[in-house]
Amino acid sequence: MKILITGGSGFLGQLLARKLLERGTLVDANGDRQPITELVLVDVAQPGWMGDARIRAVTGDIADRALLESIIDADTAAIFHLAAIVSGQAEADFDLGMRINLDASRLLLEVCRERGHKPRVLFTSSVAVYGGTLPPVVRDDTALHPQSSYGTQKAIAELLLSDYARRGFVDGRVVRLPTISVRPGKPNAAASSFVSGIIREPLNGQRSVCPVDPGTRLWLLSPERATESLIAGCELNRELLGSWPVINLPGLSVGVAEMVAELRKVSGDDVAGLIDWRIDSRIEQIVGSWPGAWDTSRGEELGLTADADFGAVICAFLATQKRSE
Amino acid sequence: MKILITGGSGFLGQLLARKLLERGTLVDANGDRQPITELVLVDVAQPGWMGDARIRAVTGDIADRALLESIIDADTAAIFHLAAIVSGQAEADFDLGMRINLDASRLLLEVCRERGHKPRVLFTSSVAVYGGTLPPVVRDDTALHPQSSYGTQKAIAELLLSDYARRGFVDGRVVRLPTISVRPGKPNAAASSFVSGIIREPLNGQRSVCPVDPGTRLWLLSPERATESLIAGCELNRELLGSWPVINLPGLSVGVAEMVAELRKVSGDDVAGLIDWRIDSRIEQIVGSWPGAWDTSRGEELGLTADADFGAVICAFLATQKRSE
Repeated sequence: MKILITGGSGFLGQLLARKLLERGTLVDANGDRQPITELVLVDVAQPGWMGDARIRAVTGDIADRALLESIIDADTAAIFHLAAIVSGQAEADFDLGMRINLDASRLLLEVCRERGHKPRVLFTSSVAVYGGTLPPVVRDDTALHPQSSYGTQKAIAELLLSDYARRGFVDGRVVRLPTISVRPGKPNAAASSFVSGIIREPLNGQRSVCPVDPGTRLWLLSPERATESLIAGCELNRELLGSWPVINLPGLSVGVAEMVAELRKVSGDDVAGLIDWRIDSRIEQIVGSWPGAWDTSRGEELGLTADADFGAVICAFLATQKRSE
Repeated sequence: MKILITGGSGFLGQLLARKLLERGTLVDANGDRQPITELVLVDVAQPGWMGDARIRAVTGDIADRALLESIIDADTAAIFHLAAIVSGQAEADFDLGMRINLDASRLLLEVCRERGHKPRVLFTSSVAVYGGTLPPVVRDDTALHPQSSYGTQKAIAELLLSDYARRGFVDGRVVRLPTISVRPGKPNAAASSFVSGIIREPLNGQRSVCPVDPGTRLWLLSPERATESLIAGCELNRELLGSWPVINLPGLSVGVAEMVAELRKVSGDDVAGLIDWRIDSRIEQIVGSWPGAWDTSRGEELGLTADADFGAVICAFLATQKRSE
C-alpha cells in the first residue's frame, strides 16, 4: 500500500509519518489491514527525518498540477492532506492562502478523480471554520461563519471534498482538528501559535507572550492524540460517515488560565511566571471568534477520543522532549 | 449610476432589468438614491427585451476574465450576479457547473477587488445549500450540508463573497432565493422546474408531470416578489448585515398537494386534472434534500417579505400572462 502525506515535512506530517511506519499497516477501503510499502512525503522543503527505506520525499509546489500528477497514481491508496498556509499567514497574504488552501486542495481532488481509483483522502480542517454569533456549544451541524480567510478556505475545501466524495470521485473524509498543543519547536505564523508557546517556552526557561485574555477558551489536542485521530479518521469505513463526511474531533475544552494553572502545578511558580500578558488585538480577534465549548458526540461514537486532561498533555510533551534529547 | 446584471438575458435577469429601469433609481452605498444611467446585461445569449436606451447588452462567457474586465469598471456601482448553471445541469455536467457557479463567481469578485472601488455585489444563492439531516425548521444559522454539486458550488460562492466582503474588497451580500414559482415560458434543466410546470402547463391547457410525492414541501417566491427582494437586498446598508452577509429570503412554505388544491380552486377540476403524477427518483432525491419549513425572521427584520399565499401567486401569474398577450 502506497500512502501520500502532503505537508510531510511539517511538524504533524513528520509525526504522522513516524507513527504510520511504526504501525507498518493501514486499514484499506475494504476493511483489510495492508502493509505500508511506500510513504510519499511532499512539501516545499525536505523533511528533517527520513530514517526509513519506505519514505520517498518529494519537494515542490502542491498547487502545481504536474507535481500532483507525479505523486498520485493508481497505487496511491490513502492521502493525508495536511499542507496548508496557516491562519495568520493566510490573513496577511490572501492570494497565497487561496492558492494553497483552496486551489491546491481542489487540484488534489481533481487529480484523484482523473486517476479514477477512488483513493481514501483525508483533509484536515480547523476550528477557524466557525465564527460570528455561536451557540453556547458547537456541534458538527453548527453553521460555518468563518471570520478569517483561512477559515473560509478550509470551509470551502470541506465542501469540495464532500461533493467529490458524494459523487464517488474519492473516498473522502475531513477531520476538524482542535488547536494542537503542545507543539515542539519554534513559534509559527498561526494565530494560535501562542497556545503552544506559553507552555513550551517557559518549560525551556524562556519568556513567552500570551496575546489573549486569560478567560479565552480553547479547544485542544496533543500532537500524539492528533496523529492517532488522523489515522483512525482515515481508517473509518465510509458507510459510517453517512451523508456528511466532516467530523469535529473530540478535544479538550480548556481556558488559558487553566492551562497556566496546570503549568504552575507541574513546574512551579517560576516557570509560570515566565509568561508575559500582552494583548494583541489582531490575534485576540481571530482566536476569539473560535468556539470554546463543543459537543463532539458524533466523533466519539465513531471511536475518536480526546486527551484525558491538560496536565496529561504537558506530561506527554515533557516525555517527548526527554526522548529527543 | 451604472449597474451590471449577469445572467441578464435569463428570465429573472430580464424581469429585474425591467423593474430597475421602471424605478429609474437605486440606493447606493452611502444611502443616496441615484439615477440609473446604464444597465449592462451580460449573458451567453442576447436578451429578448432591450427596449430602453440605458441597456447595454454584452454576450460572452462570464468565466472569461477578459470579458468581466471589459464590463466591470470603477463606475460599476452595483452588480446583480444571477448567472448560473441550474441544479439538474450542474449535477449532469460537473465541470460546467464548477466553471460557471464557482470559477466565474470567484473571478467576478477578483475583478471587483482589482478595480478597488468596492462595488455593491449581490449573489443569489439557493435552498440547495441545505441538505442531509435537517432540523424541523431551517434558520439562517443552520449548517449547510449540500447534497448536490449545484448546492455545493452555491455554498462555496457564499463563503467567497463573505470573505471578500469581510476584507473590504466588495460591499457584498447574498440572498438565498426560494424556488421561483410560477415562472413563465418553458421547462428548464433545474430539478425544481416542475414547481412552475405543474401550475403553468395546466393553466395553458397542457399536461404536466409532477415527479415528486404530493407530500413534498417547497419554499416558494413569485417572480415579482423575488425581483423586489433582489433590489431590496442590494439596497440594504452593510452595517445591518453584521458579520454574516447571507440572508434566507422570506418565502412561502407550501406542500405540492396544497399548490394543486389552490390551482383547483382558481381554475377547476379539469385544469388540475392535467397533472400526471410520475415519480422521478433523481429529481425527488435532489428536491427532497431541501428543507420545507423556515424561520426567516432575520430577513423579515431586514424588511424583506414573502407572498401572501399561493392563491395570490397563481393570480399574479395569470395577470402577468394577460399583460403579455
